[in-house]
Amino acid sequence: MRTIAPQTKTLEIETPFPLFLFPGEKPQPLATAPSQDDLKRIAAHRAVDLVESGMVLGLGTGSTAVHALDRIGDLLRRGVLHDIVGIPTSKKTEAHALSVGIPLSDLDRHPAVDLSIDGADEVDPHLNLVKGRGGSLLREKMIEGASKRFVVIVDESKMVDRLGGSGLAVPVEIIPFGWSYTLGRLKMLFTGECGFDARLRMTGGEKKEPFLTDNSNYIIDLYFENGITRDLDEVSDEILRLTGVVEHGMFLGLASSVIIAGRDGVTVNNKS
Amino acid sequence: MRTIAPQTKTLEIETPFPLFLFPGEKPQPLATAPSQDDLKRIAAHRAVDLVESGMVLGLGTGSTAVHALDRIGDLLRRGVLHDIVGIPTSKKTEAHALSVGIPLSDLDRHPAVDLSIDGADEVDPHLNLVKGRGGSLLREKMIEGASKRFVVIVDESKMVDRLGGSGLAVPVEIIPFGWSYTLGRLKMLFTGECGFDARLRMTGGEKKEPFLTDNSNYIIDLYFENGITRDLDEVSDEILRLTGVVEHGMFLGLASSVIIAGRDGVTVNNKS
Repeated sequence: MRTIAPQTKTLEIETPFPLFLFPGEKPQPLATAPSQDDLKRIAAHRAVDLVESGMVLGLGTGSTAVHALDRIGDLLRRGVLHDIVGIPTSKKTEAHALSVGIPLSDLDRHPAVDLSIDGADEVDPHLNLVKGRGGSLLREKMIEGASKRFVVIVDESKMVDRLGGSGLAVPVEIIPFGWSYTLGRLKMLFTGECGFDARLRMTGGEKKEPFLTDNSNYIIDLYFENGITRDLDEVSDEILRLTGVVEHGMFLGLASSVIIAGRDGVTVNNKS
Repeated sequence: MRTIAPQTKTLEIETPFPLFLFPGEKPQPLATAPSQDDLKRIAAHRAVDLVESGMVLGLGTGSTAVHALDRIGDLLRRGVLHDIVGIPTSKKTEAHALSVGIPLSDLDRHPAVDLSIDGADEVDPHLNLVKGRGGSLLREKMIEGASKRFVVIVDESKMVDRLGGSGLAVPVEIIPFGWSYTLGRLKMLFTGECGFDARLRMTGGEKKEPFLTDNSNYIIDLYFENGITRDLDEVSDEILRLTGVVEHGMFLGLASSVIIAGRDGVTVNNKS
């Protein structure tokens, strides 16, 4: 089994495709130019190489994490892996993991998680992340924060110079009570940030209902024109101090490794 | 109308009982030695002296705040006050305020609150509070934090040298998901604090169900043998950084004034 030393900052670039294969396993068909979904699958399979029998695994949520779930299910069925216990980070992941045959538990029964594998919406050069565009940021952060090792799997489009830099949302989970007051307080935190905006996330056909998280909370999405330019730890504390805020989608210092699948190969970036 | 200057730290001690009376108002009967409930009512009525017609009021929760609600209802009925809008800090307060005829609104429609009046479980010499033994800490903190002025009403038994010093609970509102993991993280924060304990708040006849807040969250009660000896702002940030924590019951720097009713008179302590 291939391992990545988590203690040192390294940059491994590997080519060519396709993936490392187990005995008897057929290569996945790949077009000469892999699609974004191919890249997500490549990163996910590479992370699953780190899984060992007997591990308690944090199971991520989203289109990249789904490939990891499918792969773990495959390896369990083949008998390559056994005695795996998965801790799902969302109700969606719980359903998918059960459908591919991964035995599940929760953080209360298994508070020590060996390895979590999950995607991210953004990754900065210091391995800080934005997560939670899927709305599962609280459960993800709790489970991944409880993990000895947290491996992030992304395609290269997720890499940013600074968090918020993709122009997409940085989500904040809030209590529904007083939500518009909390929205106002969040806007005040970023007064003066060029092009900043914050909006309650809506859902439904005509987007008329507030989106509800698995914890029945709301999400406020923060938008930065040029990313967050201030000290991230300070911004984190300022957001968390607001009454009504439950958690935000910045994952600072939590990732052990980031596996980035790009058209030129796989890059593994480890926490220094 | 009597007012208290909020800008300066003063200590006013007033005797004797009973209260300041409005024209035509009969004095409340008081035993020579007032009961604890008498003291709560005295502090509450003193705070309501600060209410002016046209104000948006934050309405507190608990056995002391109830006296303020009753008094405001009285004054509205007598026509001494008019055009009052109340923002209740709990469902219980909402019901009681309606029953005594106080028109209600919420923080979304009235984000600027003129004055909040509420009790507290503990008050330290710097006017820092512990609140939320009734389970309404989040709504209370949001509304009272949104107030131009926040007046705390207590009987003298609530005064402590340091928060947590009464030996009663300092509550923390948490998301039910992963609660025992969050409990473990909270315990780790206070490892080494002499006699520290943390427990999930239970309810029901045989106390078999977790207590649910108005936001459908759980409460973990922290117990300190000798109160919190560390820097309160640091402790606050450490608690809020824990994923799964929504809010805690320490109200630091939020109170403008504390009105303390004791057997020797009423003391008003203003924020310096």
